[in-house]
Amino acid sequence: MTDGHAARTARTGRKPTLAVVGATGAVGTVMLEILSQREDVWGEIRLVASPRSAGRKLTVRGEEVEVVALSEEAFEGVDVAMFDVPDEVSARWAPIAAAKGAVAVDNSGAFRMDPDVPLVVPEVNAHAARMRPRGIISNPNCTTLSMIVAMGALHAEFGLSELIVSSYQAASGAGKDGVDTLRAQLAAVVGTELGTQPGDVRRAVGDTTGPFPAPLALNVVPWAGSLKEDGWSSEELKVRNESRKILGLPDLRVTATCVRVPVITTHSLTVHARFENEVTVDQAHEILANAPGVVLFDNPAEGEFPTPADVVGTDPTWVGRVRRSLDDPNALELFVCGDNLRKGAALNTAQIAEVVAAELTAP
Amino acid sequence: MTDGHAARTARTGRKPTLAVVGATGAVGTVMLEILSQREDVWGEIRLVASPRSAGRKLTVRGEEVEVVALSEEAFEGVDVAMFDVPDEVSARWAPIAAAKGAVAVDNSGAFRMDPDVPLVVPEVNAHAARMRPRGIISNPNCTTLSMIVAMGALHAEFGLSELIVSSYQAASGAGKDGVDTLRAQLAAVVGTELGTQPGDVRRAVGDTTGPFPAPLALNVVPWAGSLKEDGWSSEELKVRNESRKILGLPDLRVTATCVRVPVITTHSLTVHARFENEVTVDQAHEILANAPGVVLFDNPAEGEFPTPADVVGTDPTWVGRVRRSLDDPNALELFVCGDNLRKGAALNTAQIAEVVAAELTAP
Repeated sequence: MTDGHAARTARTGRKPTLAVVGATGAVGTVMLEILSQREDVWGEIRLVASPRSAGRKLTVRGEEVEVVALSEEAFEGVDVAMFDVPDEVSARWAPIAAAKGAVAVDNSGAFRMDPDVPLVVPEVNAHAARMRPRGIISNPNCTTLSMIVAMGALHAEFGLSELIVSSYQAASGAGKDGVDTLRAQLAAVVGTELGTQPGDVRRAVGDTTGPFPAPLALNVVPWAGSLKEDGWSSEELKVRNESRKILGLPDLRVTATCVRVPVITTHSLTVHARFENEVTVDQAHEILANAPGVVLFDNPAEGEFPTPADVVGTDPTWVGRVRRSLDDPNALELFVCGDNLRKGAALNTAQIAEVVAAELTAP
Repeated sequence: MTDGHAARTARTGRKPTLAVVGATGAVGTVMLEILSQREDVWGEIRLVASPRSAGRKLTVRGEEVEVVALSEEAFEGVDVAMFDVPDEVSARWAPIAAAKGAVAVDNSGAFRMDPDVPLVVPEVNAHAARMRPRGIISNPNCTTLSMIVAMGALHAEFGLSELIVSSYQAASGAGKDGVDTLRAQLAAVVGTELGTQPGDVRRAVGDTTGPFPAPLALNVVPWAGSLKEDGWSSEELKVRNESRKILGLPDLRVTATCVRVPVITTHSLTVHARFENEVTVDQAHEILANAPGVVLFDNPAEGEFPTPADVVGTDPTWVGRVRRSLDDPNALELFVCGDNLRKGAALNTAQIAEVVAAELTAP
């Protein structure tokens, strides 16, 4: 290991110091909840945010902690630094944290496709976290994370050859502004007869589309992220490129169409998954029922299938509607839900940080 | 032709008589609007409904018409009888209308897969309407109809070999009860912080899930229709079986996952369409831009892609987000929207009836 504090931490047996950068943001808020709920592997937890938030007090592990301003000094003595900040802030500060001896665990898009930065989902590729020549580990995009644990489990058994996915992405994937926008739009359309004439919802919500390119209340919007080559959205290419990197399958066929839906939190995806080998629903059920981090919830006769309203606030990837494709004995159809702020962001970052903490404190 | 009134209509040159059965229902209401908007090819338009609605007066073509009770006599002198009623009512009454000499155009699921009943989308297979040994023509399911015009146009050029679709289906696909349920649920969650804790939306809407197996407000529900073999929903099998029949491709590979979303009216679908031949986005754009009944709306750089809020209340199938699959030069990804009450139900039925009217009055 090349990380500065690692040897010292192992030597002294002390619990490692964690910095949470972006502690006051949407994901940061969920992160403090998660850190309070999980087994406490940390010594000091230092909360870091922009200078304008410095001095605020936030609660973590039942204690008030004062937020300090982002600076080089903030990483003094830090073993692991989580970043829940915009890409450009991570791009600048994660290498600084690494230079100060911390392992940076970054939840932005800044380093995900860097060949010298592992992209880690502990249930799928925890081993990759040890190879971090830049001292940085990336956390995948929330849409990829909402399905990849289940796909990793099926891949281990059947050998994945193709994914064709469509997303049903929640407003909170676009941050607090996304949630506020959806709630304000719902208030504007509730109690009306809107949604039956061309453009009536658009006129009612006016210019208040917030981070979305069209109204989201009483609507679905087939766009997330920025425009890339040949009509693809950045979100769709992230699902493709990140799935390949996490699964270690650089040639995996992956197609995604990303659509925003009027849900507050929890992304859903339909998945057509093709494998090297023939599959059965019974085998898939058994694998999913036993996979860490996955809940199989698949009994339509009893009304059992995952929906965002039931999955939100929980940690696992929920899987239902498992069917074998009628035209292809090697393919499965599935419906998958995952909380985009928990497993899709804060939880996976916390899990990566715990993998690093275990490594640093190993005798 | 074996239809009783056909010869007489052609002989006398009079405009044919149309009966609208189910005139007071959700689709019937849209049907009266559509009949008032389209070129007037009909002589008498007779409105038929259950005995409890008989005597009500409804407006069509700017005139008040009194509703008559469904009975054998109601079909006296009728050339074309449209049925917008539940399956069991169609199953009983469409053959009676046919026996009385009318051509029955049925929007229920009762006859769609009957080999002696054509399943017609005029832009795709108008010719099939002439072959109707039972005197009955079926109108496809709304989900199939929301994409099939665009798929038919692409098939004619490239030769379709596979469809993998995911739906984003509106509440009105489940009738007026579906719309009322969604609006009531939205009223229960608006102005709250709901949608962030497991089951909080479910508790807020209580048992008022109406025709849906889970809350629909702030949620998506991966279920439509009834449970069929091996975990498939009836809606998913309809998309498969009806697409094959309409396109005349009995072995077409078709996989659907049907999901309800909190939209009032207009179904959306993501489509992965594979063809016999290589495709380009430019070719697909040209075909779709020139296809009758299709609007190409595909310029993400300008925020142009179809959404239900803009498509609702319009007649065509709207297509956007056209991309060539990155792993397969023979496949396209598309996002398609269609008003499930218009093209998805009433409009297509009216178009079929007009095809029959043209045939009956041809010199």
